[in-house]
Amino acid sequence: MLIDIHAILERDRYKLLIGAVVPRPIAWVSTMDGAGNLNVAPFSFFNAVCSNPMTLMFSVAVAETVDGKKDTLRNIEAVPEFVINMTNAATAAAMNLTATPLPATQSEFDWAGLTPAPSKMIRVPRVAEAPIAFECTLQRIVTISDLPGGASVIFGEVQGVFVRDDLYANGRILLDAYQPIGRLGGNGYERVTNTFEMERVPAPE
Amino acid sequence: MLIDIHAILERDRYKLLIGAVVPRPIAWVSTMDGAGNLNVAPFSFFNAVCSNPMTLMFSVAVAETVDGKKDTLRNIEAVPEFVINMTNAATAAAMNLTATPLPATQSEFDWAGLTPAPSKMIRVPRVAEAPIAFECTLQRIVTISDLPGGASVIFGEVQGVFVRDDLYANGRILLDAYQPIGRLGGNGYERVTNTFEMERVPAPE
Repeated sequence: MLIDIHAILERDRYKLLIGAVVPRPIAWVSTMDGAGNLNVAPFSFFNAVCSNPMTLMFSVAVAETVDGKKDTLRNIEAVPEFVINMTNAATAAAMNLTATPLPATQSEFDWAGLTPAPSKMIRVPRVAEAPIAFECTLQRIVTISDLPGGASVIFGEVQGVFVRDDLYANGRILLDAYQPIGRLGGNGYERVTNTFEMERVPAPE
Repeated sequence: MLIDIHAILERDRYKLLIGAVVPRPIAWVSTMDGAGNLNVAPFSFFNAVCSNPMTLMFSVAVAETVDGKKDTLRNIEAVPEFVINMTNAATAAAMNLTATPLPATQSEFDWAGLTPAPSKMIRVPRVAEAPIAFECTLQRIVTISDLPGGASVIFGEVQGVFVRDDLYANGRILLDAYQPIGRLGGNGYERVTNTFEMERVPAPE
């Protein structure tokens, strides 16, 4: 069937997106406001962009707040640094707790029982429990729309990467030790366990 | 450990990104050049952006071609429309074949044994074998860098969505019928089968 997306509600377009664009990696983003209050929140419209400069992006939806901004976006506008922590099976429940909407001055670190660890390259702390963390400075914000259902895309330039010692060998991340999780539609998540390999096929002579 | 990303090679930054930012969804992008030649290629630096306007993004790395552009980017600059087809277990091998670098005028549809199906809202055909396809018009291109290791991020505005009839019920994509796959590091892929649910926790009173 062909779905006329202009004939369905914004809510149904959203459901279609999150059910079809799967599996999604999860950015578990720590930020700080101008007064030093810390925030942590998960975002799954997230991916790598390129390796030179080493760049990541995630999309922050327009919120039902007075200024339409989630704490994460407001904080990055005030303090243009953030950590994209990666989550995994061991931290999944804590990550989910950081999706609870709390007042801007209440820290998700406390609420979810997480530990802020100092970053090396930026002022904003990483989540100590996260297996991998990308310390980023803000590269640019691309606002797609500030209407409901719109979003701002935040591009971060990676300045340093924390990797738990047992996850990294010969320049590679070890999947079995990492135990990553992915985001699906609805309340769905997955553990990345059913893996296979495909080698690229060379061009014909 | 803290990895100083300015002290490692671009190649190793890339390996770190693709091993850490997992699982990634796969955009299987069909495009057309000004002469009507068709191209299909997979990209896993890809995600949804927002639902109003319904927007997707994917990142195209700088290529080792004369103009530094992959066929996909060059085609979209010439004909600013494209289909983001979704792949799955049944189409994984064909998707992998479309990653083979072919001359610009040779169609990956033919090489991979795929069928172009007319789109409803745009001129570029979708992949008939794909379970879901987003017909997009170009919204904007954000060039992060045109140096080696850089990329251009292509934002597409969704104009219509093809969904195989058996995949869609009550406004939701049915995961068991869809059988999506995800991209991992190296030559790694996964089938999305080890799923679980977590409900969002409400804020305390």
